Amino acid sequence: MTTVQARSKVWLEVDGQPLLGDGRERLLRLVHETGSISAAARAMGVSYRKAWTQLQCMEDLLTWPLLVRQKGGAQKGKTSLTPAALELLQQFDDLKQGVREFVDARYREVF
Amino acid sequence: MTTVQARSKVWLEVDGQPLLGDGRERLLRLVHETGSISAAARAMGVSYRKAWTQLQCMEDLLTWPLLVRQKGGAQKGKTSLTPAALELLQQFDDLKQGVREFVDARYREVF
Repeated sequence: MTTVQARSKVWLEVDGQPLLGDGRERLLRLVHETGSISAAARAMGVSYRKAWTQLQCMEDLLTWPLLVRQKGGAQKGKTSLTPAALELLQQFDDLKQGVREFVDARYREVF
Repeated sequence: MTTVQARSKVWLEVDGQPLLGDGRERLLRLVHETGSISAAARAMGVSYRKAWTQLQCMEDLLTWPLLVRQKGGAQKGKTSLTPAALELLQQFDDLKQGVREFVDARYREVF
């Protein structure tokens, strides 16, 4: 008995350029969790330069900042995500979750 | 003003192996339209061997035939899709269409 499964992938684009997919989402979350682009790059197994370029590319496409560097206090020098960036990730997760559920339901319906 | 767009991709798998996506769907439709694997391969810009391997791989995963070679009459020697293969393509198209509509609607909702 052959079991066919439906798979899906969702990503965001700006003017046909890739903005946000699973890889960049992971990078952003790691930057936020570790407080550092270089720690996030290490965790992803990519160079600092590559991680930095990806983040820069996203900010260029969005024309608003994803990252904020803490200027003082105990968190001084730590890099975190802006509230707008965190909201974007949440919205992207909601979209992915919805699509997964839809594909599963629709798949059972058509096959 | 930045316009973020949601994009999606859907494909089918059997036991974690890719079965059917946009590329293979196009190959199957071209085989059916041209009546020939080699004409379909040419139209796709791939070798006959590559096209044949893709078709064989799909049939191995499904364990039922996708292609039928006409044995007689005016269509002698012509390769076409089995009714089950045509139904699979129709179901795949329905799934893709549904996901596209869902992503568009959901995207307007969450962003």
